[in-house]
Amino acid sequence: MTRAPTFADIRIAHGRIAPYVHRTPILTCAAIDAVVGARLLFKCENFQKAGAFKARGAFNAVLALEAAEAARGVVTHSSGNHAAALALAARTRGIPAWVVMPSTAPAVKKAAVAGYGARIIQCAPTLAAREAGVAQLLRETGAAFIPPFDDPLVAAGQGTCAVELLEDAGLPLDALLCPVGGGGLLAGTALATAALSAATRVVACEPLACDDAARGFASGMLQPQVLPVTTIADGLTTAMSAMTFGVMRERVSAVVAVSESAIIEAMRLIWSRMKIIVEPSCAVPLAALLEGRFDARGQTLGIILTGGNVDLDRLPWSR
Amino acid sequence: MTRAPTFADIRIAHGRIAPYVHRTPILTCAAIDAVVGARLLFKCENFQKAGAFKARGAFNAVLALEAAEAARGVVTHSSGNHAAALALAARTRGIPAWVVMPSTAPAVKKAAVAGYGARIIQCAPTLAAREAGVAQLLRETGAAFIPPFDDPLVAAGQGTCAVELLEDAGLPLDALLCPVGGGGLLAGTALATAALSAATRVVACEPLACDDAARGFASGMLQPQVLPVTTIADGLTTAMSAMTFGVMRERVSAVVAVSESAIIEAMRLIWSRMKIIVEPSCAVPLAALLEGRFDARGQTLGIILTGGNVDLDRLPWSR
Repeated sequence: MTRAPTFADIRIAHGRIAPYVHRTPILTCAAIDAVVGARLLFKCENFQKAGAFKARGAFNAVLALEAAEAARGVVTHSSGNHAAALALAARTRGIPAWVVMPSTAPAVKKAAVAGYGARIIQCAPTLAAREAGVAQLLRETGAAFIPPFDDPLVAAGQGTCAVELLEDAGLPLDALLCPVGGGGLLAGTALATAALSAATRVVACEPLACDDAARGFASGMLQPQVLPVTTIADGLTTAMSAMTFGVMRERVSAVVAVSESAIIEAMRLIWSRMKIIVEPSCAVPLAALLEGRFDARGQTLGIILTGGNVDLDRLPWSR
Repeated sequence: MTRAPTFADIRIAHGRIAPYVHRTPILTCAAIDAVVGARLLFKCENFQKAGAFKARGAFNAVLALEAAEAARGVVTHSSGNHAAALALAARTRGIPAWVVMPSTAPAVKKAAVAGYGARIIQCAPTLAAREAGVAQLLRETGAAFIPPFDDPLVAAGQGTCAVELLEDAGLPLDALLCPVGGGGLLAGTALATAALSAATRVVACEPLACDDAARGFASGMLQPQVLPVTTIADGLTTAMSAMTFGVMRERVSAVVAVSESAIIEAMRLIWSRMKIIVEPSCAVPLAALLEGRFDARGQTLGIILTGGNVDLDRLPWSR
């Protein structure tokens, strides 16, 4: 099993990536606070380099490579944001990058990967097809594999987001709400929060349409990927790994799953009231509050808005 | 003729409204800087109370009323953002508000006005129809008229936006780009800039489809409203007043007009790269740079993003 990062790894990651990524702002919105009856602090990773928190893990992993290893390039598979982040990190270090992407990935995310100079290899939208594509590329190129989440350097990088949120919040948080797909952000968030603010609960949020984390949390057994994928939260469709699942079981207080209609309502609420663009995946924690999946009345909550890479020609409320 | 505000009026306005409005952030975007070859500082009034800079002028005018006058309420006409701002300012002071709105105003703006508790009276989309509606309301209610732009208190309030941009920029600006409709923001901006940073040019930007400011600037003669209105920049369709026109002639370096396609391209560029929601009117200055209407290469420019009240069901690129 992949080793989980420690909090020391997260601190090292933070120093390593700081020159290359944004310390993103925390925004608040009185109108949304009134709707949910809680005080919400939104950590805006939609403003992050390459438009998502994934830049943190990708930069940490790419910058940690030895020079000789780095020169042969990097390979990954991703539904989109990790691919773009890795492409940007590789270009920044001046090394080649290859990305295996499912054919179902949003066009805007494929365009971003290509725009950062990485080569895209398309595959079927299953974990098996992704892994086969990566294995072939590794044989052909001798490049280093930078997984989208099942990696201590990647998960440590993602954990730097919670460090900033906890440091910059200016007041204690009752809970920190975090979307969960593969679980890299969740693992990093849970480990950072345990170290910095042990009284803050970490709550994982996912679509009901792929609720493998909630079922795994309830049963104690790692669940396989849910197929077919029917959620608009395209960043949250992968199953967790043994490592991220283990961190979740140990460090996370609750896992809640939400309906598609609540995700769309929450996304639209953020767009219309906060005037910021977030992708469907980030709307999942607010959707949990709107649906009453998690009782937060009167509490102060941190919410990680994970990314802003949306296909502006295909908005969920205009389909 | 309405008196133009002085810089002292703008300073007083700033102190008066500070407890009620946001000191909005300045955002930058390396990707857009690369596209236009200049360094752009975007003053984000889309994050302002009620979603637009209009809150500044409306709060200044409402808070300046004597108690007895205020108690009878306020009246205005507006295509949308001034109406919502005035409704919010009136509700904050606990006084009634009536708003004459053209039937063509976006539904999202009408909903905002109603949401803040003001009463809406619809009219034809002409200045004459608006003014007739206001005159009738004034007779019926005895309320105070708070014009959308032709007023020293309103224009002084709008000028506080440029004060913050110049104070918070952290470096000297070669120019400050400002959309122009009725000219209240432009007048306040030009007066504030002349007082605080005389070397910074002020450039007014408007749609070619209603280029009354550009034609007036070139001819020296105030131009009437352009009809029919065919621009998507719904906030910029009103003609200037003698007061705002006079400030423009004296203090503004250039007036540029841009195509509809450039406005849509600029709006989409801001959405997709900055991950923020701006309405078409705010995209006009960036459109001027994209179309090469104003040579800014190598310069540092301030751009006021005036508002974020967009009908999310009717985006210009999906019509």
